Amino acid sequence: MKSTLYRAWLQYSPVQDAELREAYRRVLGTIVLEGRQSELLDSAIEELRSGCRSLLDIEPELLLLGNEMPQLASNEGISSGLQLRVQPAADNVQDLEEGDNSAPGKLGPEGFRLQYLGDSLQERVILIGGSEKGLLYGVFHLLRLVAAHEPLTAWNVTEEPVNRLRMINQWDNADGSIERGYAGRSIFYRNGRFTNDLTRVKDYARLLSSVGINAISINNVNVHEIETRFITREYLPQVAQIASVFRKYGITLYLSINFAAPLHIGGVGTSDPLNEDVRRWWRAAADEIYSHIPDFGGFLVKADSEHRPGPFAYGRDHADGANMLAEALEPHGGIVIWRCFVYNCMQDWRDRSTDRAKAAYDHFTPLDGRFMDNVLLQIKNGPMDFQVREPVSPLFGSMKHTNQVLEFQVTQEYTGQQRHVCYLVPQWKDVLDFDTHAGGQGSYVKRIVSGSLHSMKLSGIAAVSNIGDDENWTGHTLAQANLYGYGRLIWNPDLTSEEIAEEWTRQTFGNDEAVIKTVCGMLMKSWPIYESYTSPLGVGWMVTPHTHYGPDVDGYEYSRWGTYHFADRDGIGVDRTAATGTGYTAQYFEPNARRYETLEDCPDELLLFFHHVPYSHRLKSGKTVIQHIYDTHFEGADAAAALLAEWASLEGRVDPAQHAQVAARLAEQAEHAKHWRDVINTYFFRKSGVPDEKGRTIF
Amino acid sequence: MKSTLYRAWLQYSPVQDAELREAYRRVLGTIVLEGRQSELLDSAIEELRSGCRSLLDIEPELLLLGNEMPQLASNEGISSGLQLRVQPAADNVQDLEEGDNSAPGKLGPEGFRLQYLGDSLQERVILIGGSEKGLLYGVFHLLRLVAAHEPLTAWNVTEEPVNRLRMINQWDNADGSIERGYAGRSIFYRNGRFTNDLTRVKDYARLLSSVGINAISINNVNVHEIETRFITREYLPQVAQIASVFRKYGITLYLSINFAAPLHIGGVGTSDPLNEDVRRWWRAAADEIYSHIPDFGGFLVKADSEHRPGPFAYGRDHADGANMLAEALEPHGGIVIWRCFVYNCMQDWRDRSTDRAKAAYDHFTPLDGRFMDNVLLQIKNGPMDFQVREPVSPLFGSMKHTNQVLEFQVTQEYTGQQRHVCYLVPQWKDVLDFDTHAGGQGSYVKRIVSGSLHSMKLSGIAAVSNIGDDENWTGHTLAQANLYGYGRLIWNPDLTSEEIAEEWTRQTFGNDEAVIKTVCGMLMKSWPIYESYTSPLGVGWMVTPHTHYGPDVDGYEYSRWGTYHFADRDGIGVDRTAATGTGYTAQYFEPNARRYETLEDCPDELLLFFHHVPYSHRLKSGKTVIQHIYDTHFEGADAAAALLAEWASLEGRVDPAQHAQVAARLAEQAEHAKHWRDVINTYFFRKSGVPDEKGRTIF
Repeated sequence: MKSTLYRAWLQYSPVQDAELREAYRRVLGTIVLEGRQSELLDSAIEELRSGCRSLLDIEPELLLLGNEMPQLASNEGISSGLQLRVQPAADNVQDLEEGDNSAPGKLGPEGFRLQYLGDSLQERVILIGGSEKGLLYGVFHLLRLVAAHEPLTAWNVTEEPVNRLRMINQWDNADGSIERGYAGRSIFYRNGRFTNDLTRVKDYARLLSSVGINAISINNVNVHEIETRFITREYLPQVAQIASVFRKYGITLYLSINFAAPLHIGGVGTSDPLNEDVRRWWRAAADEIYSHIPDFGGFLVKADSEHRPGPFAYGRDHADGANMLAEALEPHGGIVIWRCFVYNCMQDWRDRSTDRAKAAYDHFTPLDGRFMDNVLLQIKNGPMDFQVREPVSPLFGSMKHTNQVLEFQVTQEYTGQQRHVCYLVPQWKDVLDFDTHAGGQGSYVKRIVSGSLHSMKLSGIAAVSNIGDDENWTGHTLAQANLYGYGRLIWNPDLTSEEIAEEWTRQTFGNDEAVIKTVCGMLMKSWPIYESYTSPLGVGWMVTPHTHYGPDVDGYEYSRWGTYHFADRDGIGVDRTAATGTGYTAQYFEPNARRYETLEDCPDELLLFFHHVPYSHRLKSGKTVIQHIYDTHFEGADAAAALLAEWASLEGRVDPAQHAQVAARLAEQAEHAKHWRDVINTYFFRKSGVPDEKGRTIF
Repeated sequence: MKSTLYRAWLQYSPVQDAELREAYRRVLGTIVLEGRQSELLDSAIEELRSGCRSLLDIEPELLLLGNEMPQLASNEGISSGLQLRVQPAADNVQDLEEGDNSAPGKLGPEGFRLQYLGDSLQERVILIGGSEKGLLYGVFHLLRLVAAHEPLTAWNVTEEPVNRLRMINQWDNADGSIERGYAGRSIFYRNGRFTNDLTRVKDYARLLSSVGINAISINNVNVHEIETRFITREYLPQVAQIASVFRKYGITLYLSINFAAPLHIGGVGTSDPLNEDVRRWWRAAADEIYSHIPDFGGFLVKADSEHRPGPFAYGRDHADGANMLAEALEPHGGIVIWRCFVYNCMQDWRDRSTDRAKAAYDHFTPLDGRFMDNVLLQIKNGPMDFQVREPVSPLFGSMKHTNQVLEFQVTQEYTGQQRHVCYLVPQWKDVLDFDTHAGGQGSYVKRIVSGSLHSMKLSGIAAVSNIGDDENWTGHTLAQANLYGYGRLIWNPDLTSEEIAEEWTRQTFGNDEAVIKTVCGMLMKSWPIYESYTSPLGVGWMVTPHTHYGPDVDGYEYSRWGTYHFADRDGIGVDRTAATGTGYTAQYFEPNARRYETLEDCPDELLLFFHHVPYSHRLKSGKTVIQHIYDTHFEGADAAAALLAEWASLEGRVDPAQHAQVAARLAEQAEHAKHWRDVINTYFFRKSGVPDEKGRTIF
């Protein structure tokens, strides 16, 4: 029996309400499946059966109606039941235009329609999938409704994913370590080898599929020696095994590749993307891959970034590099996802003219239009690196002829490393809802990455996973909400953070309203709390170098990483204005450019990202910057302690194992928040000499 | 043929001066050895032969005169030659009292007398050793004189080592890594096993013996899993092999042990030093060790320090712990060297009452008199941890009934990690010449650790080695001078730093006077230069945490390590006075206590170690603290660049391989000194707001 920690949001806890349980049993006791059998349908049925068993303690009767699709009316022998059906492929709406209502009733291949039809004679639920995959998503949705105790009469929903590519990136290494992993070791690898037992990989596939993830890259973007050979005959049989586990759940497998592979393992003597031998080598590599994995997704590439090899070594640009790979994959329908996290990581801190925030835009916008159709650029949400607060990357919208993928980080590298609770969905929503004005008002990031703004066919969202082999997958049990929320949000960016939090809480902890209210409340305030006791007002960093955990205000101040705050005895912040600073603000479309440029208009929470101001500068809140720092840090540490108290009040109301796990993490957070508070406050008090207005203890 | 880099100071470069070479050949062409053969004499002869071969291109004739000791006059057949003789054991002066002239002509067992006797008829050199070991030391000394082109007429010397225990500590781990090692991997271990090829170990023994080292511990004081088992039958045969290599060069082998060994590998269930089963276990372990290594030296112990296990866990004190081990070793003549590097490494930085500098004194002085005779306490030179500048540990002299060993660090953990040149002999001399006033004026540290002040029989000096498997042993070739100088200085603390530098330079680079002058000049100013661009005025630290390389002013400021500078916008320094600070100054004898306590009397170079002062405070130099910081850092970086230029002037005058090696390191140092300069100056400018009087660039 899998533990509550392990089951995450697929708890399928028994429905205790007798009336409700009886209603669910009536419609789920009989399942009529129309259509031909397939791996995906098998997964759907398996999930449905085990869900029913666990939620309702029933073993549903399964009726197979064969390949033909009869009329609903013909099932007259069945008075109640669940009818599963796959829409004929010919009817599929391949590309749903935004707001397109021309084909009511027609579904995209990943869509589904769930409908309850009940009258005094019979009660039926009809679930139609736009394809087998859509049906699988529908099954997960149905089970979600049961777990959330949603009454049958409310079961009437048509869903289509808004984003086409919904991807998760594993930063797992073959040695079993995970770069920026905070939940144990890899579930894929151990000591340089693939794991033999794929049970956990399958359960991961279930978790991902249940929230609509349809793509996964299974190795770190920093591709080391062993992983470089994943694309060769030596490792492909094992990669194919992993691919087959994910395939059953509608998830396509990708690999991160080493741009220098032809040189390192191909014996070609160069990796120049314009060299014919190199191009031939990659074509052969692609052929080999597809002979093992016919539906292989493609390559994820970190090139010319943080010492990774790339086209620059040969005087070529990113388009040359990406297109060379795209050409090799194109005959097989594969794609290249090329990361834009490119900057000078050997910067001299004394040089104030260089601004890392500008790098991605400067590197990539000139290449707009030069990438092949099956190349997607993957852009981090902010211009720096997954800080607790950053502006949105100005690269979004700046390329009108390039497929774009937004990259989030589910793993909490800079947001508490799953030792602090930090529900990130609100942060991600801020990004998705940001109006770039790239094509006038309403040019939200979510419309750029869904492809609707510039009518791009290949686009979507990717994120770095936060799971490992910890019993509860994510280290902090509340961090499961981030993986869940990521999937749900990119399926439908119009879901609210609160809705997602509530969905997750009900499925994970049950339907006790007191629990729902408390947990959702904790989740919703967790990001602001974490922000309040860490680096202030969008300035970022101030973390221990390398580990990125814990406060070190000057940790990166004199380093080569381009991440500075420039605090002196008078003031703090980075002048990124066009008028007197690095000129970064000019990378935005108007009116954003002017808004960030103008001290008075710049939002408080990003003030120090854009401006260097004296400690006495008054924020819109009316507080000075220095008093804001003191106040937020005192309040933040108190709020962290309050989280612990809130959680304590739930003892006896949630599963004891879950309760103990979360309590231990919250206790650590409360203690560590005090450390953050005192280090930051002491640093700025020593530097500014300004006393706290309220006379609290600063060391 | 071994490379010049590898040969270090045992180059034995051919004597080019024809007249001098002829003179040496005359006396070294024939060697008459009186006395019975032994391993040590074999080593002496082997060294002498290979030295003569290399230095003089001769193959000396060896005459063995058997066991009897004939009169010199009886060797009438030999008109010229070198006569080697071992003083009969009965004549040995076991314990030379300081300044004892009662037995002229009598030698201690490690002493030797070298005498040139020449007249018109015959030329002879007589070398008498107080024992075989003394004779071996004499041979190395003789070869040193030849390498330095010392005329025969000046060969008239009697030497006795001042310190009884002259030890080197390897911080090598079984996995081949070296804690705080900056010259490659271990020469003893690789991947958890002892190395098979002991050639390099033998050459290391030669290097050590040539400067009089007589003891070595071969594993890190942090004893990990594998090394815990070194004292068991499983590993002792291999340890014994190493011991036999060192034995041939008069060096006794010691092991660092894990205090919790009875618990971890003994199956005893406890490591309580007062538990009878534990005591029995250690006695059995000692018996086992001595059955493999009859002259085993004993144990080096880091206990209750930085998370190492120790007696505290059982409510016992250091005397309980040390005596328990001493009791086990005592029947075999072994000793326990117990480190005093004990402090609270989980300190809360917010707690200003705790002072790490006070810890060793507070822990150990109450135990004075409680340690067994074969226990020695090993005390780091300063109260903190091998900083570029620290006061001398107040523990020296505070225990009148306890054997004391002074611990230096040859490996340059905090002094540039052998990427910067930093000749440490002057620093060590400062320590040895420090007058503790423990027994009135003249109670120098060197008299405490030589045992002469308190008439202790077992005492001496130890140091952490700086070698690894780099071709040149020490990473930076000029760092060889530290290992050489360490041995020479502890043999005779009255040698000057300049004498030692010159000895080393002549042997390493030859006798070109321009080279001698330049290299010695570079060495002599290297410590002041390194100090000038790193942390100022004795405050210490300001290094990158963990690696300890490179500047990070606040790196340890908010940590648990007890190493703070308390710099704020107004001033800097640690108030360790008795009047208003931590009270550390009171640990010294008068007049030192008062001198450090009084702001006006406290030496500039230690000012910030003892006092917190405003940046405007005037030093004895007349400069303000802040201007001193700016000036030393600008000057220090310039001086580092000048070192590179000086060395460049020697191109063609020293061996090309050596020249290139040193030039590369000096270039790195020059560049990195600028980084130090700019980080430190920028940090203090941003904090103090005081501009540089000379208007130089601060970022």
